[in-house]
Amino acid sequence: MDTALLIDEVRLTPILIADPPLLNIQGVHQPYTPRLIVEVVTRGGVTGIGETYGDGKYLEPAESLAAALAGRPVSDLNGLFALADEVCADSRAADEGVDAGGLRGVQTADKLRLSVVSGFEVACLDALGKSLGLPVHALLGGKVRDSVEYSAYLFYRWAEHPEGGERDDWGAAVDPAGVVAQARRFADEYGFSSFKLKGGVFPPDEEIAAVRALAEAFPDQPLRLDPNGAWSVETSLHVAEQLKDVLEYLEDPASGTELMAAVAAGTDVPLATNMCVTTLAEVPEAFARDAVQVVLSDHHYWGGLHRTRELAGICRTFGVGLSMHSNTHLGISLAAMTQVAATVPNLDYACDSHYPWQTEDVITTRHVFEDGRLTVSDAPGLGVELDRERLAVLHRRWLDDDGTMRERDDAAAMRKAEPGWRTPSIPRW
Amino acid sequence: MDTALLIDEVRLTPILIADPPLLNIQGVHQPYTPRLIVEVVTRGGVTGIGETYGDGKYLEPAESLAAALAGRPVSDLNGLFALADEVCADSRAADEGVDAGGLRGVQTADKLRLSVVSGFEVACLDALGKSLGLPVHALLGGKVRDSVEYSAYLFYRWAEHPEGGERDDWGAAVDPAGVVAQARRFADEYGFSSFKLKGGVFPPDEEIAAVRALAEAFPDQPLRLDPNGAWSVETSLHVAEQLKDVLEYLEDPASGTELMAAVAAGTDVPLATNMCVTTLAEVPEAFARDAVQVVLSDHHYWGGLHRTRELAGICRTFGVGLSMHSNTHLGISLAAMTQVAATVPNLDYACDSHYPWQTEDVITTRHVFEDGRLTVSDAPGLGVELDRERLAVLHRRWLDDDGTMRERDDAAAMRKAEPGWRTPSIPRW
Repeated sequence: MDTALLIDEVRLTPILIADPPLLNIQGVHQPYTPRLIVEVVTRGGVTGIGETYGDGKYLEPAESLAAALAGRPVSDLNGLFALADEVCADSRAADEGVDAGGLRGVQTADKLRLSVVSGFEVACLDALGKSLGLPVHALLGGKVRDSVEYSAYLFYRWAEHPEGGERDDWGAAVDPAGVVAQARRFADEYGFSSFKLKGGVFPPDEEIAAVRALAEAFPDQPLRLDPNGAWSVETSLHVAEQLKDVLEYLEDPASGTELMAAVAAGTDVPLATNMCVTTLAEVPEAFARDAVQVVLSDHHYWGGLHRTRELAGICRTFGVGLSMHSNTHLGISLAAMTQVAATVPNLDYACDSHYPWQTEDVITTRHVFEDGRLTVSDAPGLGVELDRERLAVLHRRWLDDDGTMRERDDAAAMRKAEPGWRTPSIPRW
Repeated sequence: MDTALLIDEVRLTPILIADPPLLNIQGVHQPYTPRLIVEVVTRGGVTGIGETYGDGKYLEPAESLAAALAGRPVSDLNGLFALADEVCADSRAADEGVDAGGLRGVQTADKLRLSVVSGFEVACLDALGKSLGLPVHALLGGKVRDSVEYSAYLFYRWAEHPEGGERDDWGAAVDPAGVVAQARRFADEYGFSSFKLKGGVFPPDEEIAAVRALAEAFPDQPLRLDPNGAWSVETSLHVAEQLKDVLEYLEDPASGTELMAAVAAGTDVPLATNMCVTTLAEVPEAFARDAVQVVLSDHHYWGGLHRTRELAGICRTFGVGLSMHSNTHLGISLAAMTQVAATVPNLDYACDSHYPWQTEDVITTRHVFEDGRLTVSDAPGLGVELDRERLAVLHRRWLDDDGTMRERDDAAAMRKAEPGWRTPSIPRW
């Protein structure tokens, strides 16, 4: 193999990015949230970029993996998993129950390593594509569509963080009128025509009212509601019954395969998940019990773009729908999401993305949604470039942080407004 | 995208290759068997090669697909399936029950198109790899092993075809001693250390005796028996009981998910299949019923190398073993099998290959097994080159054939020796 394609160096840069005061069952987003930027540099002098979660528990295995990569072919992606198992074995991790900020489903050492590998896999694909003059989608077997549709990601939110931080001009949204106004702006500015509301924040009947208000404002447009497992089976079935005529799907109404299966058995509303099924190990039982009808893929969780395609194949084989989940992320991950989404024939729904809420980025040119869609880049690699000046600023913020923002903690942020707040036990309602 | 990577032309060359008189439940291999060689030529002047089944029903859709490819990126592999569905829609195909010669499992129009697509997908990957200077495995995410283990594929056979044709020096093998002698030569010449016997030819107790003789001659080496679904559940369980101490797995003892599930429920011997599960549509029920414990992948059936990797992911997810099936094939397909096998972490067993039985080939340098293994080529593309002189000779044979060999028909060949022979209905025993 051409030695220009061997990895020369890997650079890791943890950063803090501004995040609005978005509400969820755990609490509220902190003013800043950590991400890790991965740069893979080849001997040929090409740099590929990736991003993943930036909390401390991801940084340690990322450093171990970065140290092990020099001299390996940048095309060696299938080998990253065994390598990570080997070199990250000692990293702290695992079995911490539901993650405080991310609501990212089961937390295991394996899954943590997959999230780390994903950042490296994407960076390697970007470097390989740039080296060969091919877009990432061509390295995944080629695109089957020229644009990818995204959904508006609506949040209950406050106008500003209780503790200060950046302030945007979106204002508060804590009732049906506020949610509809937010949706209207998303539709006007980005052209989104499907809407997902992050729920689990207010009592279910208030959230039902918000979705019904959306249905009146946007008749016949796909609507979704996601309370992050906040409800009992009974409550889930009540919400499903109330919204069955307007919901495209109901996302994680209850927590875990057992309860999701019970909900699914009682309603015709399709259930989607990014909590009940977030690893391959969870697939067989969930599918056997028909607990979920739509899996929300996330290349961070699943270990990268190749693994996302594998998940898509599994869903296609078992007649389960496929859509795409999003946590707070920047333009590198959005480029990766769009590239892999373009290659999957059975991407049945508009993808989620937090991107419009992230006003800061580390790429030179931000992605622009048109009619709710992103055009699939045919430029080499991911089609985005790192803005090193911005990266340095955001890294400086991370360096200067006293530690409170480096670990995402939505409950801690909530305590700034409600001192007695504790992460609710679920089912909350 | 670089216009050098656009497809300029596709050439299809049907050929007839010599095949020894190997016995199976359908009858005996004919003296010659058809294959189709696919050449994909890029505007950059690079030629990629693939091969697939060559019977008439494959040629027609292959011609339709070939005609539709010009001007498309050679990296556009995910798009081949929809294209084939579109342009091959009128081709004759499908629903013919068990294929006369191939014992290839269910025959549907979809599966036939996948077999056609596979030849094109491999040729495109070869052309892409040669254009970029990368081995095919690097285009599939990289190898996770440097060599791939193969198994000796033992057949009951005659010394020569009743109707003449090429004669080799292997002699007959119609009893335990003959099978052991054949295995010995395979072990000595190729270094194979696991052995598969194609059964369904003689009454089960004779085949049990042959496997026991192999076990005595090669103690503790993996043994497999494959009667192509010839047996009832009762007979299957009898054989499993008799051979449970020596079989690595029992392949397709009975036919179809229903019977395989019944056999699996009654024995601890793992059941493998290349008949019961040969399409993604067959996976869910077979896995749910635990009808098979090992799936034998075949990139021809499954639609190419990317789809084979998808199948591997499904098997890994559901805890089902993975090995690799082989029909009569040449060195192009063996190169493709080796490249994809190298990328799959959960390839749990030595792969099957008919290759040692095929003395004719269309590549310039034949593959050489060492210690039963093939080294994974790191040369660009598949790492093999077309021998145009040999291709012309074998195509001339196809042109000169009066039609009797162009459609594989093992029952017709058997009638040359036993005029009243008809394909047995199964279960035969």
